[in-house]
Amino acid sequence: MMKIYDWYTGPYPARVRIALGELGLQSQVEFESIDLWKGEHKTPAFLEKNYSGTLPVLELEDGTLIAECTAITQYLDALGDKPLLTGTTPLEQGIIHMMNKRAEIEFLDAVSVYFHHSTEGLGPDVELYQNDEWGQRQRDKAVRGMRYFDGVLKQQPYVAGQTFTMADIAVIGGMIFAELVDLAVPEECEALLAWYAKVQERPSVQNRLALSAPNPVPA
Amino acid sequence: MMKIYDWYTGPYPARVRIALGELGLQSQVEFESIDLWKGEHKTPAFLEKNYSGTLPVLELEDGTLIAECTAITQYLDALGDKPLLTGTTPLEQGIIHMMNKRAEIEFLDAVSVYFHHSTEGLGPDVELYQNDEWGQRQRDKAVRGMRYFDGVLKQQPYVAGQTFTMADIAVIGGMIFAELVDLAVPEECEALLAWYAKVQERPSVQNRLALSAPNPVPA
Repeated sequence: MMKIYDWYTGPYPARVRIALGELGLQSQVEFESIDLWKGEHKTPAFLEKNYSGTLPVLELEDGTLIAECTAITQYLDALGDKPLLTGTTPLEQGIIHMMNKRAEIEFLDAVSVYFHHSTEGLGPDVELYQNDEWGQRQRDKAVRGMRYFDGVLKQQPYVAGQTFTMADIAVIGGMIFAELVDLAVPEECEALLAWYAKVQERPSVQNRLALSAPNPVPA
Repeated sequence: MMKIYDWYTGPYPARVRIALGELGLQSQVEFESIDLWKGEHKTPAFLEKNYSGTLPVLELEDGTLIAECTAITQYLDALGDKPLLTGTTPLEQGIIHMMNKRAEIEFLDAVSVYFHHSTEGLGPDVELYQNDEWGQRQRDKAVRGMRYFDGVLKQQPYVAGQTFTMADIAVIGGMIFAELVDLAVPEECEALLAWYAKVQERPSVQNRLALSAPNPVPA
């Protein structure tokens, strides 16, 4: 049995949970909760598992650790007979990886920096250094990113083209994080909002929290 | 003929130039210089090619544009009969993507932020916003990253294991950028320095600048 270290409501953990659902691999993993709000991802023990101190991390049966959502998704997607999320042709692979990275740097990661630097973030015990001006800049970048992806989705049904891929999941991560920090999508981003309404109907997205949660669920 | 938009001395362009050399694809691309020092990567015309305003960008014969080093490398590596840089098994793919991303966030990207925010960077006409405190933090992060990769390379010959991969190229990018900004590798990082001496002997690394340069070469 593989194990995933994550926190059930986290936007980055959501990416791998959605990938698991899309690939039908839910039953092949167990989850171990790492409480972000207590900073459990920054303890020396956890940093041994992932130097970057981020969630999620996948642990294989032999103890091999794979961190980073893109890497975990690439691994899981390659387990099957045919990749579903990362492309089959060189062109598909290239475009999906480009749009996935763009979703990170222009949207999801920018929202994350805003959260950690310009809001209370995970609280004073975890946020040991904040740079509010940088965080505000990243918030503005994220909103520009929303407008960019709105433009993309005016041209094509999914972020990397005609099918749902890892790149859509990265933008979903951005939308989840934006909701958590009350960063509204501009009303005029109709294509982005319509795409989000559509992808939220996918079972992988709907069921992601239920895959596992700490017991008892925090208030 | 494929085209690459880049700047010949750039650390990120170096990543794709090295990948081309490793894959033996040098003769299949032509280069168009985008002068970073004049901010040509931030012009509206170039932002149409790459929303993020970064180099390099690969343009296929049909006009398709692929930005982001990882995506370009993934594309080029998939063109051949067998991937050489991005792994063949799911496990190899996962580990290589993890270490590649870790090399970016913990080292190369951190050096880049330091350059753009805490030094003169590309000059006042290009660096329209600087956050020196953030840049200094990223410099410190990059030096920690050097120590981390030194530890990795004490355990194994290459960044992602037993063979030279995309992840090594990302760390090479970090080393190239660190040299440009006079950010010294701590002397005690003997494994990192030995690895770097070794990989610098590869023709792909030695010949990267000669693949193309603006004519005349800037002073």
